[in-house]
Formats: sequence, C-alpha cells, structure tokens
Amino acid sequence: MKKSGLFFLLTITILLVTTGSLFGTETNSNNIIADVINVQKYNRSIHVMAMLLVGFGFLMVFVRKYGRSALTATFLLVSVAIPMYFIVTGGTEGNIDKLILAEFGAAALLICAGSVLGRLKMIQYILLALLFIPCYAFNEWIVLFGGFGLIGKEVFIDAGGSIVIHSFGALFGLGAIFSLTTKKEYETTVESDETSDRYSLLGSMVLWIFWPSFCAALVAPADIPITVINVVLSLCGATIATYFASSFFRKKVSVEDIANAALAGGVAIGSTCNLTTPTIAFIIGIAAGTLSTFGFAVLKEKIQKLIKKTDTCGVLYLHGLPGLLGGLAALVVVKSVNPSAQIFGIIITVIISFISGLIVGKIVTILGRVAVPYDDKEELEVE
Amino acid sequence: MKKSGLFFLLTITILLVTTGSLFGTETNSNNIIADVINVQKYNRSIHVMAMLLVGFGFLMVFVRKYGRSALTATFLLVSVAIPMYFIVTGGTEGNIDKLILAEFGAAALLICAGSVLGRLKMIQYILLALLFIPCYAFNEWIVLFGGFGLIGKEVFIDAGGSIVIHSFGALFGLGAIFSLTTKKEYETTVESDETSDRYSLLGSMVLWIFWPSFCAALVAPADIPITVINVVLSLCGATIATYFASSFFRKKVSVEDIANAALAGGVAIGSTCNLTTPTIAFIIGIAAGTLSTFGFAVLKEKIQKLIKKTDTCGVLYLHGLPGLLGGLAALVVVKSVNPSAQIFGIIITVIISFISGLIVGKIVTILGRVAVPYDDKEELEVE
Amino acid sequence: MKKSGLFFLLTITILLVTTGSLFGTETNSNNIIADVINVQKYNRSIHVMAMLLVGFGFLMVFVRKYGRSALTATFLLVSVAIPMYFIVTGGTEGNIDKLILAEFGAAALLICAGSVLGRLKMIQYILLALLFIPCYAFNEWIVLFGGFGLIGKEVFIDAGGSIVIHSFGALFGLGAIFSLTTKKEYETTVESDETSDRYSLLGSMVLWIFWPSFCAALVAPADIPITVINVVLSLCGATIATYFASSFFRKKVSVEDIANAALAGGVAIGSTCNLTTPTIAFIIGIAAGTLSTFGFAVLKEKIQKLIKKTDTCGVLYLHGLPGLLGGLAALVVVKSVNPSAQIFGIIITVIISFISGLIVGKIVTILGRVAVPYDDKEELEVE
Repeated sequence: MKKSGLFFLLTITILLVTTGSLFGTETNSNNIIADVINVQKYNRSIHVMAMLLVGFGFLMVFVRKYGRSALTATFLLVSVAIPMYFIVTGGTEGNIDKLILAEFGAAALLICAGSVLGRLKMIQYILLALLFIPCYAFNEWIVLFGGFGLIGKEVFIDAGGSIVIHSFGALFGLGAIFSLTTKKEYETTVESDETSDRYSLLGSMVLWIFWPSFCAALVAPADIPITVINVVLSLCGATIATYFASSFFRKKVSVEDIANAALAGGVAIGSTCNLTTPTIAFIIGIAAGTLSTFGFAVLKEKIQKLIKKTDTCGVLYLHGLPGLLGGLAALVVVKSVNPSAQIFGIIITVIISFISGLIVGKIVTILGRVAVPYDDKEELEVE
Repeated sequence: MKKSGLFFLLTITILLVTTGSLFGTETNSNNIIADVINVQKYNRSIHVMAMLLVGFGFLMVFVRKYGRSALTATFLLVSVAIPMYFIVTGGTEGNIDKLILAEFGAAALLICAGSVLGRLKMIQYILLALLFIPCYAFNEWIVLFGGFGLIGKEVFIDAGGSIVIHSFGALFGLGAIFSLTTKKEYETTVESDETSDRYSLLGSMVLWIFWPSFCAALVAPADIPITVINVVLSLCGATIATYFASSFFRKKVSVEDIANAALAGGVAIGSTCNLTTPTIAFIIGIAAGTLSTFGFAVLKEKIQKLIKKTDTCGVLYLHGLPGLLGGLAALVVVKSVNPSAQIFGIIITVIISFISGLIVGKIVTILGRVAVPYDDKEELEVE
Repeated sequence: MKKSGLFFLLTITILLVTTGSLFGTETNSNNIIADVINVQKYNRSIHVMAMLLVGFGFLMVFVRKYGRSALTATFLLVSVAIPMYFIVTGGTEGNIDKLILAEFGAAALLICAGSVLGRLKMIQYILLALLFIPCYAFNEWIVLFGGFGLIGKEVFIDAGGSIVIHSFGALFGLGAIFSLTTKKEYETTVESDETSDRYSLLGSMVLWIFWPSFCAALVAPADIPITVINVVLSLCGATIATYFASSFFRKKVSVEDIANAALAGGVAIGSTCNLTTPTIAFIIGIAAGTLSTFGFAVLKEKIQKLIKKTDTCGVLYLHGLPGLLGGLAALVVVKSVNPSAQIFGIIITVIISFISGLIVGKIVTILGRVAVPYDDKEELEVE
C-alpha cells in the first residue's frame, strides 16, 4: 500500500502535467463593482472553509483518543472533496461561485463522515470522498440545477442547503453505517472527556459564528442583511431551546446536546433563510433545537438499538431531521413556494442519498476494517 | 423547573406564531453601493460574533473544571441577549446596524458575566441576560442616542465602546457581585491549569485579532483604515506593556496578565479609535496595558479582600478601569470633544451600571444558589 | 532587569508624547469605491492577523510544557514587529497596504522564531523582533521595491511571499540557530503529547483556512478569485500528498507531518498564486507537500545531526525548501517572468537572510541563556 501511495501521487502529477487543463482556465470580469461583489463572495468562502476545517473538524474531536485522527480525516476529506467537485462538474474557470459550491459538497461529505467517524482507515475516508462527491453533485444537479428537467432551475427553495447539503449528508451517512459498523464496533462505547468536550464546543462555536456566511454565501448583496439576521435568530432560538429541552429530557444538561443541537437552528433555517422574517426564523430555530435535542437525548439510543449500528456523531439528529424540518418549513412560510417541486425535491434527495450511502458504504469495505475503532493508534504515530 | 422550561418554550413559540411580528419586517435598499457597504458591515458583525463566542467564551475557560459550563453559559448569554436587544429597541427591520448594536449589548453582558462566572446556575445566566439588556439599552439610549435630551445625539465620543460597552459591563458586574458572592464562594480559590490556560490564551487571541472590526463595526468606510491601524497599534502597545509590567509587579510573568491585560489596549482605544493618530493610539495602549496589569497583579487581591467579594475574571481590571481611561482620553486627544458632555456621559454610565448591577444581582438570587461553585458537575452530565 | 523594563516603557511613552508623530498621520481617500476596496483589504489584514496569532501561535503549541510560553512569545513578537515595521519604513499614514506589509514582516519573524522556539527568554524574543524587522525590510526593499536599483520595482514575482517571507524567515532562522542552540539544548528532545498535538492541528487549520487571504492580500480585486482558487487547490494537493508521503517515509502517519507539510502548498504557491492556473497550482501543491514531508520525515534528523543544532519547529522543511520551490516554479510556469531577476532575487534573499540570521543570533546571546529549555517554568508563574 505504501509504495502504491507515492506511485499514485506521481501518476496523477504526470497526468496533470501532460494534459494541463484539469480545472479549466481563468476568466476575468471587467467591471469593478462585479469584482468587488466577487471579493465579498470569496470572503464568505473563507468563512465556510473555517466551518469545514475548524468547525466540523473540532466538533468531531469529542471522541476521546481519536481527536488527532478526526482532524487528519477532516483535512483529507476537504482536500479530496474540493478538487473532486471541480472535476465532476467541469472545471473552476476562476469562478468563486464554483468554489463555494465545492465547499458545500465538502460540508455534506463531512456530515456524512460524522456518522462513520472512528471506524474507517484514512485511505477509506479518501475513497469515501471520491465516491460521495459524484453522488452529491448528481443530486444537486437534479434538485437545484434542472437536471433531467425533473425540477425547474431555481425552483426548489434551499439557499442554505437544509435539504441538499444537510439532509443529503446525514442520510447518505445513515445508509453507509449499515455496511460500516461491525458488531464489535457497535458494542464499543464512544467516549468523551473534559478536554475533548471543550474542543468540541470550540468546533460548535465556529460553526455557529460563520453559519450566516454559509447560508448567505450565494445570496445577492441586497438580501444578505435579512438572511444574516434570520440565521442568527434561528441559532439563538435553537440554543435556548436546546438548554431547556436538554434539562427536560435528561437528568442533567448534556454537553453533547449543547454542542450539537444548538446548531440545528442553522440547519433548519437553511431552506428559507433569505425568504422569511426574523420572527419566523426564531420560531424555526426553537423547533429545530427542540427536535434535535429530542433526537440526541431520546431517539439516538433507541434507533441505534433498533438497527444495531453506530452513528458516531449523531448526524441524523443534528443534520438529518432538522434539515428535513427546514425543507418542509418552506411549504408553510414561503408564499412563492412551488409545493409539488419542493416535496418532490425532498423525496428525490432522501432516496438518492440513502441508496447511494448504502452502496458506497459497501464499496468502502473493500479496503478492509480498522483493527481497533475510535483509536488514534490505528494509523498515527503516537507517543 | 424541568417541565416549566419546555412549557415556557412552547408558550413563547405560540405567542410568536400568533402575533408573528416580534422582530419587525424586512426593508431592502435599492442601491448596489449601499448594499455592498452593508455586506461589509455584516462581515464585521461576523467578526464581532467570533469575539463573543470563541473570544469571551474561551477567555473564561481558564477556570479549571468549569470550562464546559463557561462555554454553555456563553452560548446562552449571547442567544438571549441578541433577540432581547431587538425586542427592547423595537425590531430589526432587516437592519445590519441593529444586529451590530445587539452584539455590542451581548459583549457588555459577557463582560458582566465574567465577574460572577462560576457562581450562577444556567437559568440564572439567562435571567441575568434578560434583565441586563434593558438596563444596557437604557444607558445606551441616554448616552449615545439623545435619550431624555440629556446629551445630544452623536455628541458623546465612544465609537468602540470604551464607556458604554466595557465600563458599563464591568461596573454592572461589580454591582452584581455584592449579591452574587457568598462567604463560602469568596473563600473558594478560582484555579486554572495548563490546558485551561492555553484555552484562555486562544480566547484572548481571538479577541485581539478581531478587535479592529469591533471598533470599526459602525465606522464609515473612509475612516476604517485609520481606525484599524489605531486599534492594532494600541493592542501592540498594551501587549508589550503587559509583559514588562507583569515582570515588574510579580516575581514571574503571569499568564492571567498576558491573556487579559494585553487586550486592555483594545478596551481603552474604543472611545477615540476613529479620531486619533497611530502614535497616540500606541501611547494609549501602553498606558492601558500597564494600568490593567497593575489591576490584576496588585489591585485585584486588595479590592477583593476589602469587599470580600469575588470578581472571577477580573473584569474590573480588564474592562472597567481601561474603559474609563479610554473615555477620559477623549478629553485630551480629540480636538472636537464636548468636554462636559463627555464627562457627563461617563458619570451617567457609571451610576446606571453600578446601581442596576446591584439591583439585578439581588433579583437573580431569587432563583437560589449553586451547590458547589466553579464546578461543571453543578448542572452538566460529566463522566 | 525588572525595574529597567518599566523604565523603558516610560521612556518610550514620554518620547512618543513629546515627538508625537512616530507613525505619521492620516490620509483619506475621497472615492467611495476606493474606500470599499480598502475595507476589503482591511478584511484580509484581519485574516492575516488570525494566521499570525492563532495560526502560527497554536502551531507552536505542539511543544509539551512550553505552550503558554509559545503563545506569550507569539503575542510579543507580533506586537513588536508591527510598530517596528512602521518605524523602519517611515510611518503608516493610515495606509492599509502598509499594515498588510507589516503583518507579512511579522509572519516572517514568527517563522524564524519557530526555529529557535523554546530556547529564548521573552526579552530575547523581543530583541530578536527588533533586529529581525530591519533586516527583513532591507531585503524586501531590494527584492520587491527596487532598492539600490538591483532589481526593477514589481519585476520579482512573489505576490504571496514564497521567497521574501517564507524562505527569508526560515533561512534567517537557520542562521540564528548556529548561535542559539547549546550542546545541552541540542541533546534535549522536543516532546509533544495528545493535547498539544490537537492544539497544533488547530493552528495548522487556521493557517490553511486563511492562506488564500494571505496570498491575495495585496492582489487587485479582479485577480482575487483565481488567486484564491489556486491557493486552495495547492493546499488540497499538499494535504493529500502529505498523507501519502508520510505513510511512505514512516512506519505510521505522523501528526507533525500533517500539521506542517499540509501547509507547504500555501508556501510554495505564494510566488505564482495570481499568475498560474488551477491545474498547475494543484501540481505545485502536490510537489510541495511531498518535498516538505520528505524534509520532516527524512532530512530533519540528518541535518540536525550534521550541524548539531535544533530547528524546533522544522521551519526549514515547511517554509525554507517549499518557499524556494515556489520561487523557482515561477521560472517555469509564468510566461512573463524575468528569469535573471527572479534568480537574482532568490540568491539575494538567501544570502541576506542567512547572514543576518547568523549575526542577529550572536547578538541575542548577549542577553544570556535559558536555564531549562522548552519549559514554561523558565519565566511564567506556573501552578
């Protein structure tokens, strides 16, 4: 495996050098205002990158003894997903919108990775990324960009990706864990400790902070203020709701709930972030925080027992259910919604994500199984 | 309490759904340049949010064994403060300036919370937030927005909030600790360790980094470069001064001084950040860093012994005194200053903050006392 | 020493007050578009500041027991470097470009400090900063700004600083360690542990995230999208290559490689970031990640044995070699390159940096030696 790795790198490099046009070539605008608006988009792309690496990365560090692997995996997943998205969708052409779309794909991948975290070798994370991105781009093409003419272009309401990013990633992960949880792994408890908990809260806060930029990444300048205020209020609502719901559903408040369910407001406001009012956004946040906490505190154990599989980070309860809530909320709160297109888009996403997750999970097992789950020692030099 | 929490959430939600206009409705601009400038403001609002959550949050993680609670409290304080500020001041109307003002209120609240940190239950942090914001908005209205006609609108010099944010928060906290420190709590030492110290330095650095955006948040585009350079130089001055002053006042350099007093430059430059020169800014920074270190190294113990109360994070020495220094500096360094208005505004702020702190502290005790101070076990599930 | 520190601060302050014009005075633009573009530059300057403090700072926290000192040193180095750069180059005049150039100087200084990390007292870091910046500015003036007429202004290709920032800092550090490593220090192993490793990955991620802003900091708005995409792809390439190369060169993957070599893509793309295509950028990243990992995994031990000196953070392998690779890459991938100027600029930088490093290292030893290397106890209050 070792030598093949370097050989593989060499081959890719030679291929790139000889063909020399994998990612397309540059195009410039001639309009200074358009340039300035592009620079503002690039700025949001940096915020999204902070969410991908520090946000998702550190949120996953809560697994004690697996923190260094979680961060290494995050690095690799992002680094494979972005070029892969460019390749699959036909080059960058110096287009900042394309970079943001690639980052959205990486976000969905990281969500999916959260469900199998600790049970894959690094090379398996890489394979997961290579296989996930085409499935993700295929669904995005159908639901958002008019692929096959099933849903008109720009008809489906999902500016912040409740459905195409969050639900897709979570349900793909749900499919994948059917192949990617052995009996032994299911019986191993995923443990956290004080230090890893605080890292996890750091990741959570970074996601919370930059979430408005995630939702507003591709929104027109004039709509950004209202989008940002909606996202902030939804996050506030979810955070408050999470505290009360966590007290209610458990004996004591759980750090896992706080670090995760507080973000459900961001997940659920995604679809309607640029089309609703602050008050409605606050309500969506409260609902999402409550639903997500219910998921972590009550559903998680029940579902895991039922299917005998482990969803390491509980992505179904942070991204899956709140994402669906957000996509469905558009039916109620957006006047201009096309209900059949909205429902159809959600159903397509659910089907494609779950089935492709099942298949990809199966393929990934070809590369073997980890010896000890949730342990840095599996692959890293550890003193 | 538990069931009442969820019931409370439900009531709020129903109320919001039926009235449906708590936070006002959207207004759009029709001018692309105005839009672009608004997007730049939103960008600074994100920077301020990073300061609120990761900055203030992690700065407070220095309390060993209370880190997870400090971060949970930070989440809740911010999530209550922002909507509360919108409600108290009459809706958002999709206005990004309003979001920034709400974040300023949350900053003042977090400063105040630093003085009582570790001695409140989560529900008490929430109550503190609900009561703090109206007092804060009242003072802001009088001092900055011409309330009661006492000080003309835009006469008081305080773009970066040395007085209305930092001094207000710190002195409110000083008032609050009179009710919110029991004898037992006063006698309990607040401890830090290596890991919590490094987290605290992370919070400190995040505050340092984004402080220019805090001060420049509502400054006009043309004045932003000079504002930013002034703030950076003041922070540099304070950081250097802190090192020398800490060596001077103590046997060895204290991480507490470095993590805190280095930021005093940001606090003190607040009032004059957009109206002074880089050289003066550097001097203000040196003065503030020295004063703040003197506070932490010398005054803190003396004052705590005198009043038999604990200011957990020493906010009086980071925000209180350097804030007053900053507000008074405007008298010397800004030619266009209205001296009587400046002094009057400072006095009003001192009085309102301290007295409302005393009263609110008293009210918060209605919800009881923590069993063990400075301990995550009080309310969190801890393995 | 203690009293002299405070006296020193006092003297500086009095001097500044009496002269009152150390950093120049403000100049405003009258053009709103120019203002908006300046605000966008300030925004990138904040991103670069995040790299300086949290990025470089936490990357250096990997040294167990020295984390608090590393962060304190980072604070001091930045706080001395920025005003010093302003002084040496003749004031700020409210110019945001100057702030960014000062931050570049601070970045080079932090790189250099990485090689001697743990073996200097705080006052020696300060002295290092005071002496480094003039040397840095001198080289920058010759290579980039037409100093002595040796190389034409804006002829040398290095927008993102592969040569003038990264190679300069690393080779200055290489020179400095000849004086700044005692035999005892050379024989002391630099140790990391699980917590410090995760901090180090946090620093690494922050650098990765904001690297596009570092390279694009002074690039014109129209060229920013392609610059950003090139930098991101180079980082992706380097990260993937690092994983494969680390598996290849070692028994297990090393966290040190991941945290460091993944960034080599950012270092190496610096020179050509705004002038090449995404495909070439990806190739440069793969080459840089492989080279850097080879440096950490193979060269580092050999070179340290050869010269009997310690390069604490291995900056030669992260910044030195990949920086040279990046500067030389311009010869191949940029059509408009002036080859003799490019080669001449690289040679000048190598000579100036190494020799001034040797001399400055010698001068710094005047202030003595640390008692115990790599230990917070040397100067900090530690419980």
